[in-house]
Amino acid sequence: MTDIQRYNPTVLWSDAVSFNGIGYFVEVPESGESFREQTLALLTQADRTLQAIGSDKSRLMMATIYLTDFSNRAVFNEIWVDWLPKGHAPARVCVRAELASPDLLVEIAFMAATRQV
Amino acid sequence: MTDIQRYNPTVLWSDAVSFNGIGYFVEVPESGESFREQTLALLTQADRTLQAIGSDKSRLMMATIYLTDFSNRAVFNEIWVDWLPKGHAPARVCVRAELASPDLLVEIAFMAATRQV
Amino acid sequence: MTDIQRYNPTVLWSDAVSFNGIGYFVEVPESGESFREQTLALLTQADRTLQAIGSDKSRLMMATIYLTDFSNRAVFNEIWVDWLPKGHAPARVCVRAELASPDLLVEIAFMAATRQV
Repeated sequence: MTDIQRYNPTVLWSDAVSFNGIGYFVEVPESGESFREQTLALLTQADRTLQAIGSDKSRLMMATIYLTDFSNRAVFNEIWVDWLPKGHAPARVCVRAELASPDLLVEIAFMAATRQV
Repeated sequence: MTDIQRYNPTVLWSDAVSFNGIGYFVEVPESGESFREQTLALLTQADRTLQAIGSDKSRLMMATIYLTDFSNRAVFNEIWVDWLPKGHAPARVCVRAELASPDLLVEIAFMAATRQV
Repeated sequence: MTDIQRYNPTVLWSDAVSFNGIGYFVEVPESGESFREQTLALLTQADRTLQAIGSDKSRLMMATIYLTDFSNRAVFNEIWVDWLPKGHAPARVCVRAELASPDLLVEIAFMAATRQV
């Protein structure tokens, strides 16, 4: 019997939470100025988080992608396709939204399977 | 022991992903010009996806509804109520958001139970 | 073997849905004019919903926070930190979005573990 695991909990949020074979996590880019730099940084962070929770990018189930500007969508998709293992794309939403800081251009909420159950 | 199942994976997304008794999927209307036509098309697509993953509209758990214009909300709710089996509504969010194409007026992310566990 | 449980289903939504150890619910403030009043009301409602589904605020896994105005973000975070048990923060998204009524200033979608599995 396993219970909730939290990764790097702060007073505001945890970097990831896992429970019963599923991990929940949100990434905003920790570096980068251009949209391309931020997206690459975010996906590298996602790889690290996935490893921490015992998963990897072949096990994503759902991604909710927030872009501040849809003119960045083509670049996003290009980087996204390069990053995802073929045949393992999650379900995904992609909407335009304003994010917490005007410097942030992309944010993604993920759900991933962490193990077979 | 079952592992992740993906339905119609493309390089960008899968139409649906299921794991451990839960299915995740996102629908945007594949046809329709008016808001009403698009919503009806989307919910018909959702029925098909639910069937594909071994679920149905009585087993929805969560819906995140994105409308581009809240003046469409009354029509959305009317169609939504007609479509849902009484007593089986999911939890739901309904927010305004810009979607990937200006022609799209509605997008919904769903979570549904696929079987008893 | 347990199946889906729905709490206060209406024709439009259920206040909460739980399945296989996870609860899904969405809160909009039922009272309050100021942002502070609305946020406090919303989190009190969340406590009640968590209790109803057999969970509590130490077992939140994911929160998707919609604010209509980011100038309210500092107040939100202050109240959020006070409300959350230390070390038990969920993963979270916080985006700006227009909500169903112009009087509403905040809406949150939650996922919580309801029991060990």
